[in-house]
Amino acid sequence: MTSTPANDPAPRGVFVVFEGGDGAGKSTQVALLSQWLGERGVEHVLTREPGGTALGTRLRELLLHVEDGGPVPRAEALLFAADRAQHAATLVRPALAAGRWVVSDRYIDSSIAYQGGGRDLDTDEVARLSAWATDELVPDLTVLLDVPVAVGAQRRRSAAAPEDRMESESVRFHEQVAQRFRQLAEAAPQRYLVLDATAEPAALSAAVRDRIDALRGALPDGLPDGHTERSGVRP
Amino acid sequence: MTSTPANDPAPRGVFVVFEGGDGAGKSTQVALLSQWLGERGVEHVLTREPGGTALGTRLRELLLHVEDGGPVPRAEALLFAADRAQHAATLVRPALAAGRWVVSDRYIDSSIAYQGGGRDLDTDEVARLSAWATDELVPDLTVLLDVPVAVGAQRRRSAAAPEDRMESESVRFHEQVAQRFRQLAEAAPQRYLVLDATAEPAALSAAVRDRIDALRGALPDGLPDGHTERSGVRP
Repeated sequence: MTSTPANDPAPRGVFVVFEGGDGAGKSTQVALLSQWLGERGVEHVLTREPGGTALGTRLRELLLHVEDGGPVPRAEALLFAADRAQHAATLVRPALAAGRWVVSDRYIDSSIAYQGGGRDLDTDEVARLSAWATDELVPDLTVLLDVPVAVGAQRRRSAAAPEDRMESESVRFHEQVAQRFRQLAEAAPQRYLVLDATAEPAALSAAVRDRIDALRGALPDGLPDGHTERSGVRP
Repeated sequence: MTSTPANDPAPRGVFVVFEGGDGAGKSTQVALLSQWLGERGVEHVLTREPGGTALGTRLRELLLHVEDGGPVPRAEALLFAADRAQHAATLVRPALAAGRWVVSDRYIDSSIAYQGGGRDLDTDEVARLSAWATDELVPDLTVLLDVPVAVGAQRRRSAAAPEDRMESESVRFHEQVAQRFRQLAEAAPQRYLVLDATAEPAALSAAVRDRIDALRGALPDGLPDGHTERSGVRP
């Protein structure tokens, strides 16, 4: 299994994750961050969970649109964890080890919030499952786009796309999910940036960039700059 | 989630599992036991892992024939556990609760032996994963068909079927698997029947029947007989 311990002395990319309820604007923020990184010549990989790998694409299909009532809660949690194990080992870790940044739409917190916070599974068990799946791969920064449940629902309706199984859950479920996301951020503030997702996308993206600049200043020399050697542009 | 605690007072079927390396003769013994149960009017369900449910059938396909090098070890273990969670919750527990017997070709021990004993994962972690997946559903009897690795390999060659990804592992891997199966049986002899799988199928089946008769005698009244009320035939 690919392994890149946090204390690896080699140059290493930065792992940024966007989390939040449906309709929070994660896709927009991922795109804006990607544009900014690209303008600075920072090599980076955009990915998402579930579905960031070939195996994950097939699992995503199983998870979101399965027949026969779908997986029971424990099977669902295990399938998400399997997707995450494959994603961490074959995509995220190798990219970071090669000095690239990785920007992911959802990661471990989504499992904790959706399965552990909103459904009938024990939160700690779901968290342990993901920690084991990824061999303890933790993001350098998680941006939580905190959106009121009513706003998220309105945005989803406006998007006019058919709702998948996750999105059609009840308002109470989405409120539990939002609450769980906030609790995760409060428990580790140094690894989180919590933003009010009702703000303008450009303002949100500026806040993300500011935090990333601060993060880069706080990291040991060489860690976030491994990619500049090949791009030739200093961010 | 469906739940049938072991101390549930309602009539309950008996859960019998066949384990062993590839080529041990599990399918033959499952068929012989099914015939015997049928002759006695015992309602029973034949199933297998991976693949005993609709979800499981698709996961089995992913697990045994996936492209791109296949799942990494942790993803593989999580996929087997997901299959098992669905199997236990939607097939095994409901059947047992309805008084039916369940006879499964492979269960938890296969994961421990193949992923925990033969690959690079921690055995206890794989065991905990399966225990969590099934909400601690333990078979009443596990029949281990212990086959020398060379004999199993010879039988697989004779079967003339193309080998899948599991079966084409090295001899050393199969020896580790066989050793792990034996260790599991030694750790809980009251729940295991270990048979030399080089014996004649009819003799093996007779040994299984003897052990089941003994098991039924040892169980509290009513537990294994729930099914006889509907079949009208006393086994």
